[in-house]
Amino acid sequence: MSNGDKTTPAILHARMRETVPLVQCITNHVAMNFAANVLLAAGASPAMVHAAEESGEFAATAGALTVNIGTLSPEWLDGMKAAAQSAHQVGRPWVLDPVAHFATGFRRQAIADLLEWRPTVIRGNATEIIALDGRPVAGHGVDSRDPVEYAEEAARHLAMTRNVIVAVTGVTDLVTDGHRAVRIFGGSPWMPQVTATGCALTCLVGAFTATEPSAPFDATVAALASFAAAGSAANTDARGPGSFAVNFLDTLHALDADGLEAGARIEHL
Amino acid sequence: MSNGDKTTPAILHARMRETVPLVQCITNHVAMNFAANVLLAAGASPAMVHAAEESGEFAATAGALTVNIGTLSPEWLDGMKAAAQSAHQVGRPWVLDPVAHFATGFRRQAIADLLEWRPTVIRGNATEIIALDGRPVAGHGVDSRDPVEYAEEAARHLAMTRNVIVAVTGVTDLVTDGHRAVRIFGGSPWMPQVTATGCALTCLVGAFTATEPSAPFDATVAALASFAAAGSAANTDARGPGSFAVNFLDTLHALDADGLEAGARIEHL
Amino acid sequence: MSNGDKTTPAILHARMRETVPLVQCITNHVAMNFAANVLLAAGASPAMVHAAEESGEFAATAGALTVNIGTLSPEWLDGMKAAAQSAHQVGRPWVLDPVAHFATGFRRQAIADLLEWRPTVIRGNATEIIALDGRPVAGHGVDSRDPVEYAEEAARHLAMTRNVIVAVTGVTDLVTDGHRAVRIFGGSPWMPQVTATGCALTCLVGAFTATEPSAPFDATVAALASFAAAGSAANTDARGPGSFAVNFLDTLHALDADGLEAGARIEHL
Repeated sequence: MSNGDKTTPAILHARMRETVPLVQCITNHVAMNFAANVLLAAGASPAMVHAAEESGEFAATAGALTVNIGTLSPEWLDGMKAAAQSAHQVGRPWVLDPVAHFATGFRRQAIADLLEWRPTVIRGNATEIIALDGRPVAGHGVDSRDPVEYAEEAARHLAMTRNVIVAVTGVTDLVTDGHRAVRIFGGSPWMPQVTATGCALTCLVGAFTATEPSAPFDATVAALASFAAAGSAANTDARGPGSFAVNFLDTLHALDADGLEAGARIEHL
Repeated sequence: MSNGDKTTPAILHARMRETVPLVQCITNHVAMNFAANVLLAAGASPAMVHAAEESGEFAATAGALTVNIGTLSPEWLDGMKAAAQSAHQVGRPWVLDPVAHFATGFRRQAIADLLEWRPTVIRGNATEIIALDGRPVAGHGVDSRDPVEYAEEAARHLAMTRNVIVAVTGVTDLVTDGHRAVRIFGGSPWMPQVTATGCALTCLVGAFTATEPSAPFDATVAALASFAAAGSAANTDARGPGSFAVNFLDTLHALDADGLEAGARIEHL
Repeated sequence: MSNGDKTTPAILHARMRETVPLVQCITNHVAMNFAANVLLAAGASPAMVHAAEESGEFAATAGALTVNIGTLSPEWLDGMKAAAQSAHQVGRPWVLDPVAHFATGFRRQAIADLLEWRPTVIRGNATEIIALDGRPVAGHGVDSRDPVEYAEEAARHLAMTRNVIVAVTGVTDLVTDGHRAVRIFGGSPWMPQVTATGCALTCLVGAFTATEPSAPFDATVAALASFAAAGSAANTDARGPGSFAVNFLDTLHALDADGLEAGARIEHL
């Protein structure tokens, strides 16, 4: 880890809980409830404030902002832009989740507009990151069995050229700032079967960057490690995607330093 | 079943899982998360894309479209119309869920506009189907203890005159194309106690019609049978509506041909 | 209780279940699904109808209206105003939930506009009630360990000057009409860890005021007591916020007069 021992996942996790950061989440309609519950369970304070009439004003007071374009509309996009601009101007970290940004012309333009406000972190799946780096993607997805391998080059390049932390999540996760890169192992095969887990993780990255704005790389790693560890623990009793999601909120709340260590493995590349 | 053995619920269910159809769901705010989780648990791929700026473009690429007017607004209605028009024009199946379409003038006009794009399937409760056939309904509902009996004539007539598959769901379900009709038995008394089960079922009908666009009648029967069978299985351990909903996602995911057979009974009228 | 024995929580609870009141809830995007499930589990009939094009028309037919500004936008605010005006004009009870009304200029104006339509009940946390009475609040909150103590004076004063029932909820709850005041004890420490519990409670207050429009004070007390009793019962098996929320819907559905008595204690001040 950069910053040596002060920004390990366990230390950042403990500090996040202690400080209960206020995170403004402009996320999609599917994720809204689950993401708020994930932040509460993790120990942060979510605030879903999206309208352009107040999103910029609010972003100046929140610890971090997260923006997810899953269920986009012109009105919501205006609110996202106002919030991103405000976060950028006051120097607050903000996280972009470019859901299916390649799927329609409306999304392609939206993501181009949002990128102008220089997100601190971009979190997406392999296909989204590859496409965001301007590379061709086939139809609706890359083989998700090894997204890290497929997206690593794109993620590194995107991080370098955009000066942003890039997190690619899937069976394993990758975080890179273009120079450094780590992989995170853990989680549960049920996670992709529960809608909005990725979107909720984006909000959690916001909570960790709010905790340690000066080390967004380490903060992102810590967020992903926490999520993976809670997922590993929730896997035990799950009988399907329904019970997994319930368990996950319980294990995320119960997570401590030992659980973090046991449930997520971090590999420096 | 029409098309003989090739479109039984078990075969369509297996094929749906294998093909993981992309279903565009424009549904209401209450149903959004649960419907997405139902599609994932069943084995389909949900995409909630609603804004008029992209809904038509997206509908041309999805396997099926579903439209639900539960929490209607002018902006969402524009997106629904654009998507329905697109699905109609490219010949993709689409499913209409006319939630409380008789409740206000705004809804009455909305449903008239949407019907012009000729849905493949209409799914509603008895009151909604009776009212959609232009018959008077008393206040907020028909006696829900026997909706099939009350709505059967209206459903057949509506199916004939609109050239559409009509699904009436309740304690038992009815599917008709005006000529053929089947009843589906199964499910759980907890289902009406969990919000958005009907809305989620509409999305599942979309997944099955995407799987077998040439046999929407059989696809609808298969969707309803799957839902009923998962509901029967989920009923066992439920202690109330909360645990039932969790169980239901688990049992829907675990559903196989034997479970389908055991948990849903189909009667040809 | 006022009205003597006829409006005890147990009697109002039984009558609410019997009459299944239709409650129009204009609530935030986070709360939508959970609030609908809470009303269904409690025995009421939720209807989420928010657009200005129909919200006023619908409010004239519903038993009560609830308005929550959690995820506000200009379009939704128009719908809230139209519904509040309609409820006021036809003399139907309506409940206002002024979520973070002090956080931005947009919210401050919105709440001022909504108050003009004279809500029957206002439900908020201590900070919201104190700020609504025009008193200064520090940053994002009052110490939540004793919100009743901090907010009691403000609640009484607000109730008097606005001629409204005020409910302050937290670890213990307070209900006052400016003259009378009661505290309600019960619930679970998991409740603030589950998003939208307060918002859902606002909707439940709507269900009880619809049941007994002539005694909104007693109706509010009964709603809060039901919620607290179900929370107490749900606490037993909970392993975290995820399983608590599931249990809560189960226990709310199972609640009877004995459970109400056992799980909530009412103290007249």
